[in-house]
Amino acid sequence: MNFLGKNHIGYQASAFGNHVFFGIDPRNNQPFETPFRQASPEEVDSALTKSQEAFETYRLIPIEKRVQFLKAVSEKLKANKEILIHWFCAESGLPKDRAEVEFARSCFQFEFYAKAVETGYALEIKLDPADPDRKPNPKPSLTKLNIPVGPVVVFGASNFPFAYSTLGGDVASALAAGCSVIVKAHAMHPHTSSISAHFILETAKEQDMPDGILCHLLAEDFTVGQQLVQDPRVKAVGFTGSIAGGMALQKLISERKEPISLYAEMGSSNPVTVTKNALEKRASEIGKQISASVLLNAGQFCTSPGLLFAEESANLNTFKEELIQAFLQSELQCMLHPGISKRYFERIEEHAALVDVIYAGKREGNFIQPTLAETTAANFLANPHIQEEIFGSYLTIVKCSDEVELSMCLQLLEGQLTNSLYAEADEINRFLPVLTAKSGRIIYNGVPTGVEVSFAQQHGGPFPSSLNSYFTSVGWDAIKRFQRPVTFQNFPQEFISKKVELNENVHFLHFLNGKYE
Amino acid sequence: MNFLGKNHIGYQASAFGNHVFFGIDPRNNQPFETPFRQASPEEVDSALTKSQEAFETYRLIPIEKRVQFLKAVSEKLKANKEILIHWFCAESGLPKDRAEVEFARSCFQFEFYAKAVETGYALEIKLDPADPDRKPNPKPSLTKLNIPVGPVVVFGASNFPFAYSTLGGDVASALAAGCSVIVKAHAMHPHTSSISAHFILETAKEQDMPDGILCHLLAEDFTVGQQLVQDPRVKAVGFTGSIAGGMALQKLISERKEPISLYAEMGSSNPVTVTKNALEKRASEIGKQISASVLLNAGQFCTSPGLLFAEESANLNTFKEELIQAFLQSELQCMLHPGISKRYFERIEEHAALVDVIYAGKREGNFIQPTLAETTAANFLANPHIQEEIFGSYLTIVKCSDEVELSMCLQLLEGQLTNSLYAEADEINRFLPVLTAKSGRIIYNGVPTGVEVSFAQQHGGPFPSSLNSYFTSVGWDAIKRFQRPVTFQNFPQEFISKKVELNENVHFLHFLNGKYE
Repeated sequence: MNFLGKNHIGYQASAFGNHVFFGIDPRNNQPFETPFRQASPEEVDSALTKSQEAFETYRLIPIEKRVQFLKAVSEKLKANKEILIHWFCAESGLPKDRAEVEFARSCFQFEFYAKAVETGYALEIKLDPADPDRKPNPKPSLTKLNIPVGPVVVFGASNFPFAYSTLGGDVASALAAGCSVIVKAHAMHPHTSSISAHFILETAKEQDMPDGILCHLLAEDFTVGQQLVQDPRVKAVGFTGSIAGGMALQKLISERKEPISLYAEMGSSNPVTVTKNALEKRASEIGKQISASVLLNAGQFCTSPGLLFAEESANLNTFKEELIQAFLQSELQCMLHPGISKRYFERIEEHAALVDVIYAGKREGNFIQPTLAETTAANFLANPHIQEEIFGSYLTIVKCSDEVELSMCLQLLEGQLTNSLYAEADEINRFLPVLTAKSGRIIYNGVPTGVEVSFAQQHGGPFPSSLNSYFTSVGWDAIKRFQRPVTFQNFPQEFISKKVELNENVHFLHFLNGKYE
Repeated sequence: MNFLGKNHIGYQASAFGNHVFFGIDPRNNQPFETPFRQASPEEVDSALTKSQEAFETYRLIPIEKRVQFLKAVSEKLKANKEILIHWFCAESGLPKDRAEVEFARSCFQFEFYAKAVETGYALEIKLDPADPDRKPNPKPSLTKLNIPVGPVVVFGASNFPFAYSTLGGDVASALAAGCSVIVKAHAMHPHTSSISAHFILETAKEQDMPDGILCHLLAEDFTVGQQLVQDPRVKAVGFTGSIAGGMALQKLISERKEPISLYAEMGSSNPVTVTKNALEKRASEIGKQISASVLLNAGQFCTSPGLLFAEESANLNTFKEELIQAFLQSELQCMLHPGISKRYFERIEEHAALVDVIYAGKREGNFIQPTLAETTAANFLANPHIQEEIFGSYLTIVKCSDEVELSMCLQLLEGQLTNSLYAEADEINRFLPVLTAKSGRIIYNGVPTGVEVSFAQQHGGPFPSSLNSYFTSVGWDAIKRFQRPVTFQNFPQEFISKKVELNENVHFLHFLNGKYE
């Protein structure tokens, strides 16, 4: 592992920068031994050159080889699980069971996006046949399909050292799209990220992929990211993090000559609405689900529930008591980093001036219990800051006097990744108009945590939860972030057939003449 | 027609502004009688309020009613063809046959996008069934579909008074998506645009559509457009025009708190590559096609060919002679506006400093003939300004000494709406990598003009030809610019079935369990 501490400029390890930083174990705030050397401006430039060159080769290799490479990455990771899990836990403070789940998800994602390419789904081939007899002019044939956009920059996320970082969905879907990728590693888990990059690159070498298909750059400050997103060679950017971080990146990108898409999945309070009827019939069951969701890994998820709307009632009081008991009895959990726990405590303090804390979670170092707060709908409606995300286990119950007030609260919500609705089936329709307007995903009788990596997933909601709600960072459609369509007009039949044959199981849309007229 | 000269704030005609302007007949530069009153800031604000209110109703009405409305617009237009054609010709100087074609296209577009909704194509429903037996956790059901984004602003285009203006594809596809629309009329054809709006609104009233589904604002300067795109109520913007215009709008939009998508289809030189073999076998046929394409309506198309790459040969000389003869014998054609012809003459003058003019088209007032220029590949490679678009009939032939030099020229191209390739079938593959990288559409053995309004069309290429090459402004996918996906998790079966039944012929993707594993 003599690559540790160095950047990966394609297959080349490189460490010429002057800025050095260290990983930290958040369980005891002790730094690890290996110094990590932030990429110098020259190294960033080399990575960009190599990435662009690799793209020109990678975009033209047969799709079968791309698929084989992605599947081989998954195999390679499985064969090296132990060391990856070790560093994941050591650098994040997250428990081993979570590491196992996230590891399995990351391996699966490479296979999952490979399959989206292999089946032809990602190409979205659309055949629009010629009509030589049409009057007054013959109709030409049109064939539309997706091509990769170019080198992609992915920012590693603090809270998913595997699944939204170097081994994450952005990297896997960009590689599946046919793009080369430059990862800006997150400074909170440099070992995990570097070792991840090493195994992808080892696989790439074994699979004869072009040098530069992946570059991995270390950075503690923002300069590396800035240089990357402002470089004309970069054609798309993936980011998962805070609203402030996403907006800062967007500002840098808006200074470019050529506008490109920033896919920033930022922040969300993931409100849960519980109707009076649902609470009356299932208070205890709902309470168990909500408390488990708030407690999960110290609430360090973009989908952790932070707001709960319900009408005041005796059942709501019982429900609150159950949540308090669950939080009180919960074991303290380590947060990802002293920087994260510090910010969490600050946010709780800010929030305490706006709401009533009814259970203040215990704290020891970076270890926390959830905090539970409550407020009235009137107060919620009067103060827009109450709905802002607090990253970490923290739930505010908004007590509404009736469903009208509850609806007013929902109307006031900013865009969210998710909204959950606990309700009877005949109540759904009353809430759908406002919930669809505010969400990327709506969960019926369920919690927002646990984002299924599946075909029809949508992970990305209206602003400010995401910067571009037309796209998703999870699910087969995630690949579309890194592709653009091209139409081929009047090309010979052999050419079209060859394109289609290439993907025997291709899921294409074949419109016969006049079918849509 | 007592609405002429006034803004349409939904069903309300309104003219409280102080700024007055007039339409002009470009054939004689004479202004028309009716004063048009630019929307005041208060009127713009009223339009925004009404548009947002209408959206909240419109997005929830049954899809069948939306489809019926769009089809009724087409019928209404057909019944009022005469007056629309009259003003189209009077304000644009374009000939009647062109007016007829564009009118038919505009009527068709309303039907075409209605069909995309009616068939379910636009909803893109994706069903991902539950797997209650999955270990360790059951899999929830996911159903993904598209919903409208909100009020949309559309800027009318100078060169398509029907098909990219108030009756255009942006308006039709946004209405089809379920969005309300505010049109900022183009000041070069206020009569055509106002009468168009009147007929859409008359249809909307007859079909019981919410007041405000369409607003139509008059403007001569940029202030109305600025106020519109910076307003938080606006959720997407459609624009067809110059690169300078599109970039200025993008700058205004980047100052918003909430980023939104600007779909700007800007400029393109639509290069045509002709191989030596193609020229040897079909010089005369190709020459006829190219000259007709350059001549079409004084070249005032975003897809008018402006560059032609070919290897030097005796055939190329014959080919050039044929073009010169065609241009020489062509009738002078009126440009859209004195402002347009002035700019065209300025651009020709700028360009004359860079290339050799081999046929200088005649001019009379706003009437023009095409100009033909030529230059060497070496000069083209040395001077990036040569490839910039000249709006109007103007073709530059770039003479290459061999195919290597020709490839270098193609490599240097900026992003284009289209590239055309005249070649033998066995030559295609050599050019595809570079052409796909540079284009939104590639035409084999054909000219770029004549954008087929069809299912698999892609009208939008890499920057600077468009601001967002992921999307198209023509074809069924144009609707996707004004929609975002939402996933419904764990909703009762009845709910999903109802959604699907709603669109009996729905074109949905139904993935069975494990189908993609």
